[in-house]
Amino acid sequence: MYRCKFEVHKEDARTRARLGTLHLTHGDVLTPIFMPVGTQATVKTMSPDELKEIGTQIMLSNTYHLFLRPGHELIRDLGGLHRFMHWDRPVLTDSGGFQVFSLSEIRKVREEGVEFRSHLDGSKFFLTPEYDMEIQEALGADIAMAFDECSPYPCDYERAQAAMGRTHRWAKRCLRAHTREDQALFGIVQGAFYKDLRIQSAKTLADMDFPGYGIGGLSVGEPKPVMYEMLEEIEPYMPREKPRYLMGVGSPDCLLEGVERGIDMFDCVLATRIARNGTVFTSNGRLVIRNALYARDTRPLDEECDCWVCRNFSRAYIRHLMKAGEILGARLTSYHNLYFLLHMMGDIRKAIAEDRFTEYKNEFFEKYNQNP
Amino acid sequence: MYRCKFEVHKEDARTRARLGTLHLTHGDVLTPIFMPVGTQATVKTMSPDELKEIGTQIMLSNTYHLFLRPGHELIRDLGGLHRFMHWDRPVLTDSGGFQVFSLSEIRKVREEGVEFRSHLDGSKFFLTPEYDMEIQEALGADIAMAFDECSPYPCDYERAQAAMGRTHRWAKRCLRAHTREDQALFGIVQGAFYKDLRIQSAKTLADMDFPGYGIGGLSVGEPKPVMYEMLEEIEPYMPREKPRYLMGVGSPDCLLEGVERGIDMFDCVLATRIARNGTVFTSNGRLVIRNALYARDTRPLDEECDCWVCRNFSRAYIRHLMKAGEILGARLTSYHNLYFLLHMMGDIRKAIAEDRFTEYKNEFFEKYNQNP
Repeated sequence: MYRCKFEVHKEDARTRARLGTLHLTHGDVLTPIFMPVGTQATVKTMSPDELKEIGTQIMLSNTYHLFLRPGHELIRDLGGLHRFMHWDRPVLTDSGGFQVFSLSEIRKVREEGVEFRSHLDGSKFFLTPEYDMEIQEALGADIAMAFDECSPYPCDYERAQAAMGRTHRWAKRCLRAHTREDQALFGIVQGAFYKDLRIQSAKTLADMDFPGYGIGGLSVGEPKPVMYEMLEEIEPYMPREKPRYLMGVGSPDCLLEGVERGIDMFDCVLATRIARNGTVFTSNGRLVIRNALYARDTRPLDEECDCWVCRNFSRAYIRHLMKAGEILGARLTSYHNLYFLLHMMGDIRKAIAEDRFTEYKNEFFEKYNQNP
Repeated sequence: MYRCKFEVHKEDARTRARLGTLHLTHGDVLTPIFMPVGTQATVKTMSPDELKEIGTQIMLSNTYHLFLRPGHELIRDLGGLHRFMHWDRPVLTDSGGFQVFSLSEIRKVREEGVEFRSHLDGSKFFLTPEYDMEIQEALGADIAMAFDECSPYPCDYERAQAAMGRTHRWAKRCLRAHTREDQALFGIVQGAFYKDLRIQSAKTLADMDFPGYGIGGLSVGEPKPVMYEMLEEIEPYMPREKPRYLMGVGSPDCLLEGVERGIDMFDCVLATRIARNGTVFTSNGRLVIRNALYARDTRPLDEECDCWVCRNFSRAYIRHLMKAGEILGARLTSYHNLYFLLHMMGDIRKAIAEDRFTEYKNEFFEKYNQNP
């Protein structure tokens, strides 16, 4: 039994891109990797079998949601999250910090923790770093995240600095409180959009010697170049031998820009959320399947894709399903979008291994910026 | 190429139950059979692969819905319903008659046909038997149904008689208008809840020599014993060498009672509709999975079931999914309920073959009338 072991197999000569393997309790994960999000212990519309079929190596689930419903104690008593959802590969749970700040009603942040009301029924809870560790240990994911305070965008310097300081103190408390030997605990770098704060946060957390690091508080409304700049600033201060996880980021362009800046792990609800509204990724960019243009289009969603959906169903049929509000429509678009991202990450790993990451990236964008 | 050929392999000695094979353009169907309903060219929540996995031999789709959206001409132009939904086994389309009378707004029935307004956008249409045949030929199912007028329950004698008479005249017009050699056209027996009308309808349609017969206008609100009585009355007048299809009926008890009274084919949305609300069939009766009783229940939905859902997921997890409004919940309950009915029909065929249909039926009810 080990918490987490990370090996970097190769570093790209021209960029910060890296190829690695993350060894976790429920199996190995090749990085860079995208993690499908199963907010409520299910990746929306998908079965565990389908997640495996499309090559999901690790999935993410949300502590905030599971804490409220069905409750971490219930999941612990039934054998943990893996058994509960019938998923035997690695899982990462976030800390719920982000959701407490973005979803819950009325919250009071104190040094001790955060008081908030459930977005479901208004009931009141008090979440501390220690309690958060207890919850995540009950859920039993392979990777738990430290409880942090996420700043909004924009955010003034004093507020960002205060949230960062609290995040560091809470990170220490999480380290002290965390006990499970088969679960890795990652720290989270904060600091909003101030380079000095971000660097200070990266350094402070590096000193705490977590087995891996999340980068939080990005992709919260800022322009993408601002996010990329932050990644470039902190990269030299992120331990090279530890996995780096850019939280909540998962559009095809951001995955490529993130990998180029040394990121190993990503997660995002974007792929499945836009899928349910009928937008899909294709090699030639995004496609809005409800468009009347596709009413009689017998081609697959993406002509270059070999997924189950693209091998069997036409744009015309999927458009019909979405227009008719049929669940199979959301299933097919979600399946395809996740396949697209996971397949893309596989291509990225291959490109890094073959010393042609930059060429791959340029070719990808050349096609992606056309229109389907 | 043939329209439809039906073989009766065996007739039960003690009841009217029969074992048969229906040979259709897209394959053979063993009867008695239950047909999952794909109202809008998709069995709600299910993929075609899953329908095959659970043993679906033939599915039903709705002419009324497909006529309105995406339109029969679009489906015809894209190669027909089979290709459109990626389903290569037999399909039956109903005539839309029932939906015109139950779903549409404002309708005027004339001898020529029915004027109605779409329940989707209020646009006006005029459906005649000839136009109905054109639409169903465009959809291209293996079996089409004659355009009929369905009476409500209760219904006074004069109205029932008038609707039946029109149904017979429309049936003749359908026969004359229907041209596709690879599609069978079934007539529909009407007559509401009047024995003499039902018998008259069965005889009149038998004289028209359809390759198969639907029994319409039942299960529209009447007590079940009334329906069973109607089936018993008309059975002697239904041609023995033709398949008999009891339309819109599909609860486990009605399937058994129907088979006992000589029915070969059934369809119903019940299994998938109650599934989406969280009610499942089990060997011990219906189970309402949202019940707090199941919050920590690690057993499968049905302890005697060997379907993919029951092999992999607990009641506790499925309850969580339903409470959280997750699509996977509706997928799992729908999959299980359809498997339950299809598996049950397989058991019924086996029981008839082994001369123990009555014993099977008694054993089924003994367990089913317990509570899970």
